[in-house]
Amino acid sequence: MNFIEHLNKTIQTNNSLLCIGLDPLVNRFPESIKQQSNPIFAFNKAIIDATFNYVCAYKPQIAHYNAIGAEDQLQQTIDYIQNKYNIPVILDSKRGDIGSTAAQYAKEAFVRYNADAVTINPYMGSDCVNEFTKYQDKGVIILCRTSNPNAGEIQDLPTGNTTVYENVAQLCIKDWNANNNILMVIGSTNPEQLQKIRALTDEMIFLLPGVGAQGADLEQCVSKGLNSKKSGIIINASRSIIYASEADNFADAAQQAAITLQNAINNYR
Amino acid sequence: MNFIEHLNKTIQTNNSLLCIGLDPLVNRFPESIKQQSNPIFAFNKAIIDATFNYVCAYKPQIAHYNAIGAEDQLQQTIDYIQNKYNIPVILDSKRGDIGSTAAQYAKEAFVRYNADAVTINPYMGSDCVNEFTKYQDKGVIILCRTSNPNAGEIQDLPTGNTTVYENVAQLCIKDWNANNNILMVIGSTNPEQLQKIRALTDEMIFLLPGVGAQGADLEQCVSKGLNSKKSGIIINASRSIIYASEADNFADAAQQAAITLQNAINNYR
Repeated sequence: MNFIEHLNKTIQTNNSLLCIGLDPLVNRFPESIKQQSNPIFAFNKAIIDATFNYVCAYKPQIAHYNAIGAEDQLQQTIDYIQNKYNIPVILDSKRGDIGSTAAQYAKEAFVRYNADAVTINPYMGSDCVNEFTKYQDKGVIILCRTSNPNAGEIQDLPTGNTTVYENVAQLCIKDWNANNNILMVIGSTNPEQLQKIRALTDEMIFLLPGVGAQGADLEQCVSKGLNSKKSGIIINASRSIIYASEADNFADAAQQAAITLQNAINNYR
Repeated sequence: MNFIEHLNKTIQTNNSLLCIGLDPLVNRFPESIKQQSNPIFAFNKAIIDATFNYVCAYKPQIAHYNAIGAEDQLQQTIDYIQNKYNIPVILDSKRGDIGSTAAQYAKEAFVRYNADAVTINPYMGSDCVNEFTKYQDKGVIILCRTSNPNAGEIQDLPTGNTTVYENVAQLCIKDWNANNNILMVIGSTNPEQLQKIRALTDEMIFLLPGVGAQGADLEQCVSKGLNSKKSGIIINASRSIIYASEADNFADAAQQAAITLQNAINNYR
């Protein structure tokens, strides 16, 4: 089963479009977790055990592991999600480089960590993208329009009647997707942009960050992002769920936050 | 001494604008290196010991280490270059993400590895860039126009009378460089583009990849890239130097290739 099939199956099984971002920051862990020998894995495991029924994917953000040399705990986390719960894992790394180097980044994501999908940056063009998409069973999630405050400086530049991010969308849809394994990141902080991109493709799945800590309007982003089958989006929340409490009840609080968001999304479907 | 001062001092001391990229691929190492317990560090050490007099910087490309879990050997390499030869180290990682995550990538580069400079991707805008430039003594080298065959798909998109990459250059020069620690990557494979960007700034230093394995015209890229002080560029070569020979004489061959390229660059200054 390839990534998109696996993702769609999990969406159905769990009746969820929610992806939880695993962005661990040890200074936000409760003391009982900090004191463990592998605190990041202990934290993630507790979050995963409490939320696996309410998600369609998990998305560990790699910088949070690389910054402190916790590659082993990233690997433990990915293995745990896949082996215990068979839920798709998106490695959020936003890589991009010339072909020969992109091949090494693809190897990092898909061979070393065995992630099911990876996020990548489109700025360097198709010889970068192709090194990832050639792994046909994996998902390649390309940044189109991101959710951060200054995303528009480059992404919204006008190019004739259109914009840079719309050009990226067209490349993803028309030129780069020979293996049918591309998805796009569209920030949910700007529903009009989401609507513009949805008008270009009914098929492609969008990963929508920006809900939760980044403050997007959930109703707007669901209604503008859904395709004609009331699907085609996955909505990521990271900090608003995993740090819903920073006390010993963090896993229960994360479960409640996940259920609440799962239901809110489904109410707008 | 900040990164740019350190770089300029090394350029003067070694009379060199050459940066050597350390992109190790174990399958290209001679058997005698492959058999060592830390083959990547052994390979890099031999290259560094043979070339330190002829370079202004080294640029380890991080995917080549991450792909096989060799973070420890990357750290050994950086430490060795800094402690034994006091030559600036550019960590080539082309990172980019929302501010809170960019802060983790900056921590990876500047705290974990203690690199002197890092390459980053501009697609996500200034809230990403600022997390790196706030390390005032470090260098932040932003992708402007890259050297790979399909770079133009996004970077050359026309935006009125200009292009995406020229917009990136203007942002780097006018808006993002409050701490005077930004440099730009301009591929040497297109000298006309290099000339356009040089016309926008006499001051800013450019990192020029694409010489060597990627086949750029050295005379053109030196003549179009130099500023009015016959400086302002560093020219990177990776594979053409470190794999000049793949036999036991690889370090001697790398030394010869480095000297030849150093002299060729200086001849065109």
